[in-house]
Amino acid sequence: MISKKIEKALQGSSAIRAMFVEGKQMAEKYGAENVYDFSLGNPATPAPAAFNTAIKELVDETDPLVLHGYMENAGYTDVRAAIAENLNKRFGTKFDYHNVTMTVGAAGGLNIIFKTILDPGDEVIVFAPFFGEYRQYAANFDADIVTVNPDLETFQPDLADFEAKITEKTKALIVNTPNNPTGVIYKPETMRKIAEILEKKQTEIGHDIYLISDEPYRELVYDGNEVDFLTKYYKNTIVGYSFSKSLSLPGERIGYVVVPDEASDAEDLIRGIEISNRTLGFVNAPSLLQKAVARCLEEQTDVAFYDKNRTMLYEGLTKLGFTCIKPEGAFYLWVKSPVENEEEFVTAGKKYHLLMVKGSAFGCGGYVRLAYCVSPETIQNSMQAFAKLAAEYQLQSR
Amino acid sequence: MISKKIEKALQGSSAIRAMFVEGKQMAEKYGAENVYDFSLGNPATPAPAAFNTAIKELVDETDPLVLHGYMENAGYTDVRAAIAENLNKRFGTKFDYHNVTMTVGAAGGLNIIFKTILDPGDEVIVFAPFFGEYRQYAANFDADIVTVNPDLETFQPDLADFEAKITEKTKALIVNTPNNPTGVIYKPETMRKIAEILEKKQTEIGHDIYLISDEPYRELVYDGNEVDFLTKYYKNTIVGYSFSKSLSLPGERIGYVVVPDEASDAEDLIRGIEISNRTLGFVNAPSLLQKAVARCLEEQTDVAFYDKNRTMLYEGLTKLGFTCIKPEGAFYLWVKSPVENEEEFVTAGKKYHLLMVKGSAFGCGGYVRLAYCVSPETIQNSMQAFAKLAAEYQLQSR
Repeated sequence: MISKKIEKALQGSSAIRAMFVEGKQMAEKYGAENVYDFSLGNPATPAPAAFNTAIKELVDETDPLVLHGYMENAGYTDVRAAIAENLNKRFGTKFDYHNVTMTVGAAGGLNIIFKTILDPGDEVIVFAPFFGEYRQYAANFDADIVTVNPDLETFQPDLADFEAKITEKTKALIVNTPNNPTGVIYKPETMRKIAEILEKKQTEIGHDIYLISDEPYRELVYDGNEVDFLTKYYKNTIVGYSFSKSLSLPGERIGYVVVPDEASDAEDLIRGIEISNRTLGFVNAPSLLQKAVARCLEEQTDVAFYDKNRTMLYEGLTKLGFTCIKPEGAFYLWVKSPVENEEEFVTAGKKYHLLMVKGSAFGCGGYVRLAYCVSPETIQNSMQAFAKLAAEYQLQSR
Repeated sequence: MISKKIEKALQGSSAIRAMFVEGKQMAEKYGAENVYDFSLGNPATPAPAAFNTAIKELVDETDPLVLHGYMENAGYTDVRAAIAENLNKRFGTKFDYHNVTMTVGAAGGLNIIFKTILDPGDEVIVFAPFFGEYRQYAANFDADIVTVNPDLETFQPDLADFEAKITEKTKALIVNTPNNPTGVIYKPETMRKIAEILEKKQTEIGHDIYLISDEPYRELVYDGNEVDFLTKYYKNTIVGYSFSKSLSLPGERIGYVVVPDEASDAEDLIRGIEISNRTLGFVNAPSLLQKAVARCLEEQTDVAFYDKNRTMLYEGLTKLGFTCIKPEGAFYLWVKSPVENEEEFVTAGKKYHLLMVKGSAFGCGGYVRLAYCVSPETIQNSMQAFAKLAAEYQLQSR
């Protein structure tokens, strides 16, 4: 007596989440130090001390009726204004509080954006490989995901394929840069071309196409890379942000959505997103957390921590003979499976207590994702396991 | 370029929320002390001190990677176990952690229950008057709300009408006791009869009907009233709970769902609810808040505060000649409009800075709802305004 959609979901469910549970079970069986769990994007560096200080100060200083009470569904005005101001300072944008809606993480943000713009049968284009949950979010509104192939050398999107896949049903494109699962940052040149294609196609098909920028990894970049604010490239851009990774708060579910005034039907979008926030059951982003992140907008996570992990894992695996895409941001390493069917490779890894996620979960088989948001010790200790795995596939160490 | 559903929603939206915004505007114009805003169920008594203490202790004592990190989508096991144990102690139930899923408030809980059980075209029965957002929640899954008339003397549901309205399409019934907006508690006799009807009809139509008990007001009861745990009456009961009112945390969005093992397909329901929690974009209930409420399960809100308000408002309005249903729980007073079209009455009230919500927003015209979760001064000062309103309608004071 469950719904047909959920009946189907019970069969599939999330490969990442299933592995999260499997990892916990293996840790119980073999000891946590003997399991190398690279499955989940759960930050390994703690929230900045300023976050806990902000929480304690807020609790001590704020009227509890305000701190824990209802506010407008879009969030506290002062919090939204602080975020707008911070973005303006960093990116030269011109947002105001009314452009910002506080959300229950980026997942909540994407769902209320989708609810606001998608009708059944609409198509949402994604660049493979992509965060697999986009499929479920689109399915919530009976819309379809259309995938665009990557360039297998650079993992930038194949723009000819992108242009070919835009139809009258296309309502939106999701861009996720720095990318989960590849760690690649889309080049300014790529973004300019994407915007050009969208502008041209909008005119051709006679309706707007929104670019949804899903950017939980915006601040997680290496080697002096930067990610420009995508509203500058294309006016119909809606931004979904999360503090999960930038402040190491994934369990707290706090983020925001930005709709620029230049977007088509901006006012309706903003109101629609506020209504969706309420009616989809979020009501509003958690109040204490809204106030706390507003006090931590200048804080940064320990990027150097992830950078060291990145180098250690990338160099370690490359030396062992694995083919990896060097990550420019986020905290994932995208590794080519030595055999075409990467599920076989994932299974082989488990023998050595290595937990990797199959690429097909990201719409791109033949690869696996390693989340290196783990302790440096995990990476160090995992090397002997990877060495055994490399030997099993007779890889040539370099 | 917004979706058709949201286009429609932009026209309607929430009468309660619109009034919340209007109330803030009136307060700015006339001064907060001169506006009598009875529109929103925003608790007026602060969260127990223990809640803020719990927050501070958690932040000081807990590894931030655990406190702010991902956990299973259903919530921390220790939190779920603590809630199960607390329910067992209070109600003699036999729940375990696996029966409990932590949710983003009751609104989040109802949406993931609906996502788990509803197919398009299914019907959900509600007893009028009812919390109007149920309509939107059902519409999220293309299901329909079917309303059952109340007995206009007692505001218990009309059970003959209920039985008549169960069809093959009926998938669920929502019961909300103590009731928003009437403050009425459904009698044990009513609940027994509801269970009987459901059992009979399940056999007749050949499939399960779930009773969804939406109980944010469980602990808000007066005169020694009690609300029994509805899983005892009917095995296919799913409970949605929120700490919004019981701990005065409406902005924090924290609650839970209980699926008893006796419910049909309990295991599928539990897994479906966990998947829905993730895929609808909640992912999990806010982690710090999960841990904090688990430490406050023995805490109570200041029921005496609301009780005084209840008496003052009920007696004051009755004396002025208004006809009111005496509330047994929750913090709402259900008042008969002196004119058939209660919207006219609501508009008349605004002249005296009285903000009331029209009964039609709850599927029951001819009445208005007053939320008396306000300061006692607001009620006291509002009496002269109600007196003018009574005079306008030539009510006879008693």
